Amino acid sequence: MFEKNLRMAYLLDFYGDVLDEHTRSVMEAYYDDDLSLGEIALGEGISRQGIRHTVKKGEEQLTFLEERLSLAAQHELLCDYAKRLTVLEDKLKKLGEDEDAMLVGELIKKITDKGN
Amino acid sequence: MFEKNLRMAYLLDFYGDVLDEHTRSVMEAYYDDDLSLGEIALGEGISRQGIRHTVKKGEEQLTFLEERLSLAAQHELLCDYAKRLTVLEDKLKKLGEDEDAMLVGELIKKITDKGN
Repeated sequence: MFEKNLRMAYLLDFYGDVLDEHTRSVMEAYYDDDLSLGEIALGEGISRQGIRHTVKKGEEQLTFLEERLSLAAQHELLCDYAKRLTVLEDKLKKLGEDEDAMLVGELIKKITDKGN
Repeated sequence: MFEKNLRMAYLLDFYGDVLDEHTRSVMEAYYDDDLSLGEIALGEGISRQGIRHTVKKGEEQLTFLEERLSLAAQHELLCDYAKRLTVLEDKLKKLGEDEDAMLVGELIKKITDKGN
């Protein structure tokens, strides 16, 4: 099977910076801009088979990183907690616990920013 | 300069799973067990220069990952927040807000576990 999937788009967003420039550009065209292999091949002036190979190589790199590190899964999990924390943040504000509300608000931002 | 540093030990702990087995084993002997290049060379039955090359290659891989991803820095930052959250967790318990205290306690654990 060789089909686009949301999981790979997420891994590309998460680990894409480790890919070389060409691979990343092809992967983004394929996953983010939803172009076909043929369309990317036309744009890059190389064969459809070449693009297919680049996408496959990129997918292998991203999959390898997540298999070894599980950091994208960890990030997703923390983002789920961040959503639940917004309720706590509001509650703390209502209780007049402004410092704690600010701490929780900052943490939500740091989690969802992913180090940016 | 070619000297051991705490930063590299931290990166090894964080990204070490992406290294090949030999590189990781040599890096752990050097950074975690604090063996010298010469001692590792004796144990592995290869030259000190070979070990030095392996450590350098491993350092480059770890540094590359962090330069591109900044995930170790992000993890450190979240761990700082986790410490501050323990105070909030205690406060919530005292206020009788047990569900929120549990949420915060779980989050602290998830942050410090790093996906394990």
